[in-house]
Amino acid sequence: MGKNKQFVEKVTAMEDDFAQWYTDVVKQAELVDYGTVRGTMIIKPYGFSIWENIRDELDRKFKETGHSNVYFPLFIPESMLQKEKDHIEGFAPEVAWVTHGGDEELSERLCVRPTSEVLFGEYYSKNIHSYRDLPMLYNQWSNVVRWEKTTRPFLRSLEFLWQEGHTCHATREDAQEETARMLEIYANVLEYYLAIPVYRGKKTEKEKFAGADYTLTIEALMHDGKALQSGTSHYLGTGFAEAFDIRYLDKGGDQQPVHQTSWGMSTRVMGGLIMVHGDNRGLIVPPRIAPTQAMIVPIAQHKEGVLDKAYDLRDKLKGVARVGIDSSDKMPGWKFNEYEMKGIPVRVEMGPKDIEKDQVVLVRRDTGEKEFVSLDEVEARLPVLLEEVQQGLFDKALNHRNEKTTTATNMEEFKKSLEETSGFIKAMWCGNMECEEKIKDETSATSRCIPFEQENISDSCVCCGKESKELVYWAKAY
Amino acid sequence: MGKNKQFVEKVTAMEDDFAQWYTDVVKQAELVDYGTVRGTMIIKPYGFSIWENIRDELDRKFKETGHSNVYFPLFIPESMLQKEKDHIEGFAPEVAWVTHGGDEELSERLCVRPTSEVLFGEYYSKNIHSYRDLPMLYNQWSNVVRWEKTTRPFLRSLEFLWQEGHTCHATREDAQEETARMLEIYANVLEYYLAIPVYRGKKTEKEKFAGADYTLTIEALMHDGKALQSGTSHYLGTGFAEAFDIRYLDKGGDQQPVHQTSWGMSTRVMGGLIMVHGDNRGLIVPPRIAPTQAMIVPIAQHKEGVLDKAYDLRDKLKGVARVGIDSSDKMPGWKFNEYEMKGIPVRVEMGPKDIEKDQVVLVRRDTGEKEFVSLDEVEARLPVLLEEVQQGLFDKALNHRNEKTTTATNMEEFKKSLEETSGFIKAMWCGNMECEEKIKDETSATSRCIPFEQENISDSCVCCGKESKELVYWAKAY
Repeated sequence: MGKNKQFVEKVTAMEDDFAQWYTDVVKQAELVDYGTVRGTMIIKPYGFSIWENIRDELDRKFKETGHSNVYFPLFIPESMLQKEKDHIEGFAPEVAWVTHGGDEELSERLCVRPTSEVLFGEYYSKNIHSYRDLPMLYNQWSNVVRWEKTTRPFLRSLEFLWQEGHTCHATREDAQEETARMLEIYANVLEYYLAIPVYRGKKTEKEKFAGADYTLTIEALMHDGKALQSGTSHYLGTGFAEAFDIRYLDKGGDQQPVHQTSWGMSTRVMGGLIMVHGDNRGLIVPPRIAPTQAMIVPIAQHKEGVLDKAYDLRDKLKGVARVGIDSSDKMPGWKFNEYEMKGIPVRVEMGPKDIEKDQVVLVRRDTGEKEFVSLDEVEARLPVLLEEVQQGLFDKALNHRNEKTTTATNMEEFKKSLEETSGFIKAMWCGNMECEEKIKDETSATSRCIPFEQENISDSCVCCGKESKELVYWAKAY
Repeated sequence: MGKNKQFVEKVTAMEDDFAQWYTDVVKQAELVDYGTVRGTMIIKPYGFSIWENIRDELDRKFKETGHSNVYFPLFIPESMLQKEKDHIEGFAPEVAWVTHGGDEELSERLCVRPTSEVLFGEYYSKNIHSYRDLPMLYNQWSNVVRWEKTTRPFLRSLEFLWQEGHTCHATREDAQEETARMLEIYANVLEYYLAIPVYRGKKTEKEKFAGADYTLTIEALMHDGKALQSGTSHYLGTGFAEAFDIRYLDKGGDQQPVHQTSWGMSTRVMGGLIMVHGDNRGLIVPPRIAPTQAMIVPIAQHKEGVLDKAYDLRDKLKGVARVGIDSSDKMPGWKFNEYEMKGIPVRVEMGPKDIEKDQVVLVRRDTGEKEFVSLDEVEARLPVLLEEVQQGLFDKALNHRNEKTTTATNMEEFKKSLEETSGFIKAMWCGNMECEEKIKDETSATSRCIPFEQENISDSCVCCGKESKELVYWAKAY
């Protein structure tokens, strides 16, 4: 395939240097470009169209579950940010500060929102009066800024796009149900649309959101054996309600603090998409989320009738899939490489020989398998094939994750597992933060979650050997 | 209507105090709330759902005309902003500056984007190489910040939401066509969806966008006789291309600067919507853009069968319109007022007597007209009635604007018109900026546009009496 070398050579093999492979794919698949300000990114048309599909699915599910979209301001006065103690401690080191408007120095600094709990808190305190106002179920799509030291496109950037849900409920039970419901929506979007299997669980005290009572999380496994936190849902309890005086009159006529949740998913999942499905030829986009599901590449298109037939095919397939056609004067090999790099799930080839035989060639991006399908059957076959690709990607990712999920009952096993298999390690924990910190210091693995599905692997903590409290999934993480 | 007073009393009559009426409607119709930082706004669920409908229509049209959505960073380094001289002069006085990230003072200040020409310029200079790369048609939906001294929700706020299109073309003709095409999309969205008639034209040199060769604009007339600039489309020429070195290799092998456009529409049009259609009972939302087009209010809903019938009606109408139903235990009069305040185009009443007669009552929000429609016919009637409301709103706004568009041939007439009729004044102009400034100083009216449809009202400039060059529409404006 000498003629196709141009593209292939640009991507470092993931076995050689995973970080460089990631950067190469992000650039070569035309997902992002680097912004001029350190750590910022420009999301290019192809990257943004994938994000739009993810966003639209989430948005549809939020609305189905009764949430309304709103928009809150970008700026938070410093004094307001400080109202919830744990929250400010968690976020203050990484916020950007506006000090001047035009030529004027501001009397109070404004922080560029890293998240908006305090803004919603202030609003709720003024707008919630009685139990009739509850639940209040808001979501916003916005940009946020966190002044990170080390940055990587999608995974950790100074500015990113996300949605943040903020809800108020009359009771703890209602709020906790909401917290679980939204986590399940995230899990569904990852598993069903992005073909990324996730572990669902609770964060430890150490890893929970600054200001939350507890944090639920979904954790996915990347190709290199590292975990990616892919969406979190927080039960905030009444902490912000106390700090911001968010109370409602209950049916009995008493003032009660509301119970709150917040939950977010960001452009970070784009990084997960790349690192779960990508290979050394580039990105692979699961069909359910792919802006273009099948790309028609005419072969020998200068020959009479080829382009006409290819456009007929496009019109025929338009009703069953999102299809594109590339009739540019580039060589077919170039086109193959470009759409492999962009991870378009299926390539449809059609040349003079195929036309003679009334057939097309369907090529799967994930396995490279080719099949010849008669023109009569292609409309029926393509959607089925796309489903096969979707399922194939999920199964492959699930196998990979399961193979890389091992157990350990002591630190020796823990370290051995981490070194030999990497991935998730299931190990019992005493519940003591000191053990958690020690594990991190010694192995750089962190607690990813306390899974909802508990097992009893051993009666003693993997670290200190004392009585174990619960099973934890550990991993090195992004 | 004593029982309905609660709501009505909250809105100042527009004849008494138009500004206060506007503020009252914005609050009472639950469109926005004030943010804590001066001049910022919280867009509440109802306001945001209207904006989402406008946004979705625009977005669909942008995509149909070949544009791709992207996302560029929020921050612009000070040195980059200064690359295009006119542009920085126009925007520097009203930008917010970030000086610190976490605890660190930045080596260079970052401005929070007031608009993103320079960021796109920098990108294009790196990503455009040959004529094959053109046209490059990008759009982004984002927030922008302008440090305004006097602010009002939607009309002028420190932060607002908008879309900004940025395109590059090989030739002046292509870019100028694009500039006109996008203005026509804006005009169509205002006229067809928002039922707001607009004048289309070109801005004078004084009023054009900082950095543009010329600016096209659509101008609408508000209830109080003031104009609102509702969308602008700029032909940037090659100014940014020279400043940022954006060149392409043409077919002949020569380096050429690209010709650029930019164009934007913002949440400002929400203000137009309020001030064109609203009345003393609140907002009126044109059906094509209304989140809820018809609201069912059951009458005497405690009586047996009423609620069941009302829900049956809702299910029946769901397929032909966006219908809501309010079965809360509030009094019908309260509900009437609430949905009148929110401007829901049609109210559907149904009580025991109606059920007996197999009928419903349809009430138009705009005219208050009631009609009794049999249950068999309501599915057919409602969509037609909604179209009638849409057309009625447009016609009413058009009549109002036409009545308030007068002509003047000298300053005396000009001032008299402005005082007696307000609205747009058509008057000839010599093309000299001194006359434009003099008119503004003496009357506070500004040139709104040089309309595409020129007429020759007189041979002399309305201000200096010298030879006239062109017809200009003048008005006091938001």
